[in-house]
Amino acid sequence: MLQIWALPGIGEISPGADLVAVIRAAVDADSRADADLRDGDIVVVTSKIVSKAEGRILRADDREDAITRETVRLVASRTSPAGHVTRIVENRLGIVSAAAGVDASNTPEGTVLLLPEDPDASARALAAGLRQATGARVGVLITDTLGRAWREGQTDHAIGAAGVHVFEDLRGTTDAEGRPLIVTLPCVADEIAAATDLVKGKAARLPVAVVRGREDLVGDLDLPGARSIVRPAERDMFHLGADEAYAAGFEAGRAAAD
Amino acid sequence: MLQIWALPGIGEISPGADLVAVIRAAVDADSRADADLRDGDIVVVTSKIVSKAEGRILRADDREDAITRETVRLVASRTSPAGHVTRIVENRLGIVSAAAGVDASNTPEGTVLLLPEDPDASARALAAGLRQATGARVGVLITDTLGRAWREGQTDHAIGAAGVHVFEDLRGTTDAEGRPLIVTLPCVADEIAAATDLVKGKAARLPVAVVRGREDLVGDLDLPGARSIVRPAERDMFHLGADEAYAAGFEAGRAAAD
Repeated sequence: MLQIWALPGIGEISPGADLVAVIRAAVDADSRADADLRDGDIVVVTSKIVSKAEGRILRADDREDAITRETVRLVASRTSPAGHVTRIVENRLGIVSAAAGVDASNTPEGTVLLLPEDPDASARALAAGLRQATGARVGVLITDTLGRAWREGQTDHAIGAAGVHVFEDLRGTTDAEGRPLIVTLPCVADEIAAATDLVKGKAARLPVAVVRGREDLVGDLDLPGARSIVRPAERDMFHLGADEAYAAGFEAGRAAAD
Repeated sequence: MLQIWALPGIGEISPGADLVAVIRAAVDADSRADADLRDGDIVVVTSKIVSKAEGRILRADDREDAITRETVRLVASRTSPAGHVTRIVENRLGIVSAAAGVDASNTPEGTVLLLPEDPDASARALAAGLRQATGARVGVLITDTLGRAWREGQTDHAIGAAGVHVFEDLRGTTDAEGRPLIVTLPCVADEIAAATDLVKGKAARLPVAVVRGREDLVGDLDLPGARSIVRPAERDMFHLGADEAYAAGFEAGRAAAD
């Protein structure tokens, strides 16, 4: 049985806030019998409050600058008939997303929020702090909402991880017919991130959830972080948008014919 | 509180099996106090057993034929140094995945499994049958394991749906600052599919899970199915692999220069 719940009563987070103390207080305020954190629980935190605590806030008139600053590489862009430009970019962290994770929702008017500087490091600090404060050997994931190729809508993904196996290691295991499961590498960190969006919601102020029931995925704090989920562009068949790749090919083809 | 559990004791599924009866028997065999299906529960079924029940089995020496038959369009392909070809294709259902969903794991030696002919129709039949058999107004999702652009590993996604809102409709809602949440369209069906992979596992024979706690997402059987999650190629910035788009552009550029 997997149980997933959002922590109640987490208010506005300000720069410098101690998230370990905030989460601990929210756990303590939860009056249910089993609310205390336990060994093997996974604490899943929306990146937005990590960014706020880390002071990753910019004035909104810097939004395009902020996107550009966070962008390592333009992957694809498209202009709508109404003139709205969607930019899909690779950001500093290697993550491919719209607008480099620069966020203008749920922030004070006139400001934007950048992603945490190093979400894996943020997750490690939070996991170490929570382990020390509660005595429970918990894992931590930090999540962001990302769009996908080929499918409409967004789902939450893990962009930071500490003390959690981000992939389920099936190497050496076999399927029910006894054949090795060689191809499958379930990204359990992204599956946990997605699951917690179902209790955290977007409009509500419920930025932290707890997942109980996959104790086997919790481990040492030096396990590989969410950076290991990112596929390097050179190994990605979709490292560039189709229109952008076509245009580059067209130029090269024309030059080659000259 | 979201609760997710796998149904115990579902054995091998044979062509012609009555999945309503199979799932009902598994629910009845579950001795926990709250195991009976209730209004608002979402029953999440791995496509593999739906395919088996529907007899979508082919002899394995037809595997490449089966992939080709299921393929509407080659999206991208890559040959590894060892000569292994990975084909990313769009299948009959519009779903972009490796090998068109043709599956050779967890099937009897010498056979492959195709995806259900029409997973939304399968989900509707299952949901209608379960509602009639149990009296509980449940929703049904049918899932498949899919790889992603830009990220390593796979996660489970919804390829069939009935009686469940596949997107959370946030139109008209506002964020905590009172601004409209216009861009965000959470694909809750994919998030639920991902969540249930955490209890179903790949090697275990646990192909059915129940999600309890999002009763608000369950509705009429004629809600849009999982087909509505598929982004049509003409609206997808990644409708073609970068190498394939570059090559097409190169040919066009060379021809234009002639």
